[in-house]
Amino acid sequence: MDSSYPQETFHRTTFEPSSFWAKRRAIVRKNTLRTQLNILKSTGRYDAFRLKWHPAYDDGHKALFWDSDVAKWLEGACYFLAEEGDEEEDAVIDHAVKELVDMIRSAQWKDGYLNLFFTVVKPGQRFTNVRDLHELYNAGHLIEAALSHQQHYKNNLLLDPMLQYLELIHEKFGPGPEQLHGYPGHPEMELALLRLYARTGNRHAYELAKYFVTERGNSHGVQGKHFYLIEAQKRGERPSDRPDSWPTADSYWYEQAHKPILEQETIEGHSVRAMYLLTAVSDLVRQSRIVETDPTQLDVYKTACERLWDNMVNKKMYFTGGIGAIDQWEGFGIDYFLPQSTDEGGCYAETCASIGVMMLAERMLQLDLSGKYADIMELALYNTVLGGMSQNGKEFLYENHLASCPARPSKREDWFDCACCPPNLTRTLGILSGYMWSSTIQGNDVTISVHLYSSATLTLDVGGQKVTLKQETNWPWGSPVTFFLDAPSSVNVTINMRIPGWAKPFEHGMLWEVTPSHLNPFGGFQKHYLTMSPGYTSKLGKSPMMLSFSPASFAPRMLLHHPATNQNTLTIARGPLIYCAEDVDNNWVQDHFKTVSISSSAKFEEIIEQDDILDERYVKIIVPGLRRLDTRLYAAIGYFPGYEAGYEDYLENQEVDIKFIPYFYRGNRGGRGHMRVGFRRLDQAVKLLGGGTWRP
Amino acid sequence: MDSSYPQETFHRTTFEPSSFWAKRRAIVRKNTLRTQLNILKSTGRYDAFRLKWHPAYDDGHKALFWDSDVAKWLEGACYFLAEEGDEEEDAVIDHAVKELVDMIRSAQWKDGYLNLFFTVVKPGQRFTNVRDLHELYNAGHLIEAALSHQQHYKNNLLLDPMLQYLELIHEKFGPGPEQLHGYPGHPEMELALLRLYARTGNRHAYELAKYFVTERGNSHGVQGKHFYLIEAQKRGERPSDRPDSWPTADSYWYEQAHKPILEQETIEGHSVRAMYLLTAVSDLVRQSRIVETDPTQLDVYKTACERLWDNMVNKKMYFTGGIGAIDQWEGFGIDYFLPQSTDEGGCYAETCASIGVMMLAERMLQLDLSGKYADIMELALYNTVLGGMSQNGKEFLYENHLASCPARPSKREDWFDCACCPPNLTRTLGILSGYMWSSTIQGNDVTISVHLYSSATLTLDVGGQKVTLKQETNWPWGSPVTFFLDAPSSVNVTINMRIPGWAKPFEHGMLWEVTPSHLNPFGGFQKHYLTMSPGYTSKLGKSPMMLSFSPASFAPRMLLHHPATNQNTLTIARGPLIYCAEDVDNNWVQDHFKTVSISSSAKFEEIIEQDDILDERYVKIIVPGLRRLDTRLYAAIGYFPGYEAGYEDYLENQEVDIKFIPYFYRGNRGGRGHMRVGFRRLDQAVKLLGGGTWRP
Repeated sequence: MDSSYPQETFHRTTFEPSSFWAKRRAIVRKNTLRTQLNILKSTGRYDAFRLKWHPAYDDGHKALFWDSDVAKWLEGACYFLAEEGDEEEDAVIDHAVKELVDMIRSAQWKDGYLNLFFTVVKPGQRFTNVRDLHELYNAGHLIEAALSHQQHYKNNLLLDPMLQYLELIHEKFGPGPEQLHGYPGHPEMELALLRLYARTGNRHAYELAKYFVTERGNSHGVQGKHFYLIEAQKRGERPSDRPDSWPTADSYWYEQAHKPILEQETIEGHSVRAMYLLTAVSDLVRQSRIVETDPTQLDVYKTACERLWDNMVNKKMYFTGGIGAIDQWEGFGIDYFLPQSTDEGGCYAETCASIGVMMLAERMLQLDLSGKYADIMELALYNTVLGGMSQNGKEFLYENHLASCPARPSKREDWFDCACCPPNLTRTLGILSGYMWSSTIQGNDVTISVHLYSSATLTLDVGGQKVTLKQETNWPWGSPVTFFLDAPSSVNVTINMRIPGWAKPFEHGMLWEVTPSHLNPFGGFQKHYLTMSPGYTSKLGKSPMMLSFSPASFAPRMLLHHPATNQNTLTIARGPLIYCAEDVDNNWVQDHFKTVSISSSAKFEEIIEQDDILDERYVKIIVPGLRRLDTRLYAAIGYFPGYEAGYEDYLENQEVDIKFIPYFYRGNRGGRGHMRVGFRRLDQAVKLLGGGTWRP
Repeated sequence: MDSSYPQETFHRTTFEPSSFWAKRRAIVRKNTLRTQLNILKSTGRYDAFRLKWHPAYDDGHKALFWDSDVAKWLEGACYFLAEEGDEEEDAVIDHAVKELVDMIRSAQWKDGYLNLFFTVVKPGQRFTNVRDLHELYNAGHLIEAALSHQQHYKNNLLLDPMLQYLELIHEKFGPGPEQLHGYPGHPEMELALLRLYARTGNRHAYELAKYFVTERGNSHGVQGKHFYLIEAQKRGERPSDRPDSWPTADSYWYEQAHKPILEQETIEGHSVRAMYLLTAVSDLVRQSRIVETDPTQLDVYKTACERLWDNMVNKKMYFTGGIGAIDQWEGFGIDYFLPQSTDEGGCYAETCASIGVMMLAERMLQLDLSGKYADIMELALYNTVLGGMSQNGKEFLYENHLASCPARPSKREDWFDCACCPPNLTRTLGILSGYMWSSTIQGNDVTISVHLYSSATLTLDVGGQKVTLKQETNWPWGSPVTFFLDAPSSVNVTINMRIPGWAKPFEHGMLWEVTPSHLNPFGGFQKHYLTMSPGYTSKLGKSPMMLSFSPASFAPRMLLHHPATNQNTLTIARGPLIYCAEDVDNNWVQDHFKTVSISSSAKFEEIIEQDDILDERYVKIIVPGLRRLDTRLYAAIGYFPGYEAGYEDYLENQEVDIKFIPYFYRGNRGGRGHMRVGFRRLDQAVKLLGGGTWRP
């Protein structure tokens, strides 16, 4: 059984206390767990499994996801409790976990059923609306919590009830004539079932996950029709009766059920659902290779995942790793539709969706070691995931706009009614080191693939012998990464080190250097690197070993959108970090930087700044730009829409220095909520056929 | 009673047979009336008033608007029959009109009710869904048809039934406790009622129109709630039960009923409904000044119309005079959201909506003589209205995209299931001269305001004396406009001539010239012109009198979008005409001109071309541009969304000559359906504070 899940492997890593991620995990331990526990209590979620009526239930569907809010917190708490921490604080968290487990156990029906909403608010309506009402989604999160709980507490107090619940669902859903031919409207249970199978070997869990994935989108699943259609008809719904998130009737693409997954050509619908679904699909491929008699049987699903990944990254992803341009269905728009803000036509980029991007990238890396997945995993992590939480761990962002606007200033909040993101961040930071590296052990041969760089130590047990690999680095601010390997001489360790797609060659032409230099006989040339596992360089581990990237790799660079996006803007990036400007550094801004432009030939200046919250340094970037002073352009100009070319030559502009900070760092220092990532571009140069460059 | 409606005044004008508009009206007379009659017959619409079942009725709501399709054709036919034409052809049309009137009369219920759908398809459901089912909309179009019929046939065979129907509706709707406090979901009846009042003096018509306008959007109209909510509840609908055009529940903004008109700050929803509604609102203001004891009582509605007009023109209108960026609700998006094509995120710009823009502009001109209305009326007429019909009068466009895309090539069609646009064009061209000029007569003082220029003669009866004003011009291709006035010496004629907003000064600084020059003592300076009725110059009529604009006024010019649109494109215009490029003139194009760029400093070349369909000449414009040859930019570039600045410098471009034709002329000469209005802009220059120009 392959148990390479971040949730299973994270405990093999210890972060260096002064490292970038250790500081953030310490803040979660210190502030976030407790803050979120208090909110769970004050909002009624904590006591919900006591099955009493709560005023929130008066408002129909408001408490639909409470099971999952509690489960995600509980899951995260168990990850952090696994490591040494403040004793007094841990006692509080530990007590809460135990009390919650007791309550959850007591809320289970004799037949195994376990769900708040259908026990307290709508009893008697079990499994009548798996499309909209998150019943199986909640079950999935409870299973994930149970796995985390068992891992830490070494008991089955939460896992046993979930295994009982699994049996009920396994009996209810499936291909049999008496069974429901349905699948979760919000995927999550599928990925949880596969992890449950990997931990316990329970074949019902695998079977059910496989059924949910392969049956999904079947247009003739029930009586020759779509399951969701028949399910809705049974509820007495009419075709015109539909959820608010569906723009039109029969929008099954909202939950990626408009056609079978194998036939889906583009990534559509609710972005969190899409990511959770594909995480399960890609993981099913991996598990199927062990389980099925024909190990290639489900490989067609890998092709589907690759196709949908490529569509997403190339045509539907923001530079920040955010996905989902459309507010109404919290999801994907058409190809290349990537406006930066609500007042430009959209931008949602939910924090949970980027967590989903990381999850999917991690599963894809298990199938194919390729930088195309790790690069995006790192991009999402450092920008839209990390940026979803404030430096002090107490405030959050649900949406990750690339620009603010008057109706949506850039401001963080304590919590949300639909509270998926905050506890999702907690549990993700809990297992973060599980995303950093993966390892395989065959006899005395060990391969460690390093996807993310940070100062930390991985400890492996190789046939009873201890192998440790330590990284030291200043990442994400710069390289090198120095590796210290401690392994018995009988063990052969190969290290695959990721070469980021944004790395730039040294002056001598190599894209990276490994020292001692004899480790690097062919040099770090791009050509060579493309013939290996794409985006990784592979070395026999020696200690110490230093991986370096050129200074240019960590210099600010400018990103351009694909021209089909109609986003004629420049975005500043540095290493894995996307940058933005905020009014707190640029107090002259009045219009969310809408009328501020920069040139792609602008010179950057870097300043090292100090953040007192985490006592760390970060790089601020200063870029000269132009600020339009004439406000006529934003008032009515005349009798016609738009204006004539040449008009803007008469508008005065002021030269300004625009100060940029890392996108994740926004919303931490007060201000008026003016923020922008992409700035209008002033220049353009093109190369002519037959040579020569055209400049207007 | 003021009867200045285009429908009433058009017959005072005779077009010069060789003029731009006479040729098009002749085509409608020759081809369109007969073609559309044949389609009315073949689709079942013609015989529908015989009240037999038709297979189209099987499909629920498909035939909801059939009354209006017939009515609009009938209305248009009567306008054209009023003028001399081909005898044989006219006999066919005349016979059809008479037969239709007989059938309509025979379809009326004894109590006056008259509607196909609720007589044949859903009897017994009268007035149970005025929000969605077009019952009152159809009534409005039948009233307009009756007015046109009475005008031509001088009998009341169609008007009498409509007056009887009016009494039924007037009894049914109103403020009384037994009455329905509702109003049409699709406005139209309101504007028809006001014209009916103006023609007949029927106070019930005025009262009902006023009620519909003033009650609209009342949030507590019935039992403390919105009328549409109560109406839907009576039908047994749930909040989640909604039309496909509503993106979310309770989207009353779709029909401009989300709040009272006086409280609406921005123009929202279905664009045809919005235009028909505001046409009625502005006309109600005019009529109220005659009817009401306090003639200023409804002037607040004028302010509302002005506010919504300005929002529309400045923030929600395409350069073509098209409105409505959003496909789903055939209407307005957020401010400045004006993508050019479906694959850029939207573009609808329905032909009927631009006809509505003309109607509203005409009513606003009745309230305030201002070029701001006439300019937009002309813009819509020459581009999105005229462009809705092919040169031969047999093919149509429902949507007026500014760029084609693979899923929506630029192709015309014979007809549409929802057939509002084709007969709407017929009737609009029928009364076109009614939009050209308006006149007021007080004793022997006559004022003629000329809004549109074309070779035509207006004949007025001034106290029994005949006054004629003739225009001769090559408009829209150039000026001058020469006026010949024939009036008895006892009559004083003042002529207000429109100065288009796009006019550019002569070299000597004047914006226009009137000769003989003694008529022009202060010169045509902009300053002077702004102190008069804005956008008009006023002269005591002499004959001949010549109004000239500079050659620069009719040279091609480039239009820029407001920067908040994110449309970094240049659009070619010339006089009132917007230009586009088609593959039929540019056979190298493969990608709908997506990768073709131009510079605002590009030099234009004009070529006179011949159109054989109408035997007329038009101006083609050639603009040098760059075509990107490298297709990598449209494939996946790497591991990341977008790419790094500098990359595009390596892409090769080819210099091309792009041939542009008037937008209205597109889709007349075959081709593959590649078309575009706005081309990506290559250059930009800005002025710095303190002087100097910054060029990258």
